[in-house]
Amino acid sequence: MSRVIVNVMPKPEILDPQGKAVTGALGRLGFNGLSVRQGKRFEIEVDGDVTPEKLAEIEEAAERLLANTVIESFEVVTD
Amino acid sequence: MSRVIVNVMPKPEILDPQGKAVTGALGRLGFNGLSVRQGKRFEIEVDGDVTPEKLAEIEEAAERLLANTVIESFEVVTD
Repeated sequence: MSRVIVNVMPKPEILDPQGKAVTGALGRLGFNGLSVRQGKRFEIEVDGDVTPEKLAEIEEAAERLLANTVIESFEVVTD
Repeated sequence: MSRVIVNVMPKPEILDPQGKAVTGALGRLGFNGLSVRQGKRFEIEVDGDVTPEKLAEIEEAAERLLANTVIESFEVVTD
């Protein structure tokens, strides 16, 4: 088994209410000077090796399902 | 500004319904042989440099707020 990571984050120009809420909560807990953006992390176990074809397949899966590409951007990282 | 990443994932022994749902959806879309676990990714912008003290502070923030350490584990990664 091999592992591929897909990180999905809100696009910079998009309002990130979750990130704002976490930033505010951290401030109230006394953690100042931190600005947070929140996204999703997918750990994908792949049967067999991560071939270029398998990576292209995961890229397509991220495009179609894991990320909403209107408001989110994603990166595919081999572990 | 410097950036620190906090990755939060469900502990391996904990059921991951979101991951299961994504795995199922990928199968129905024709992406086979992929098993997915879903977690959260926090990108934290830090005022000034990331000193050891600042990293310890972020570690504590992750412990207290970003992760539910009963069912989740986290890692702090300097970008």
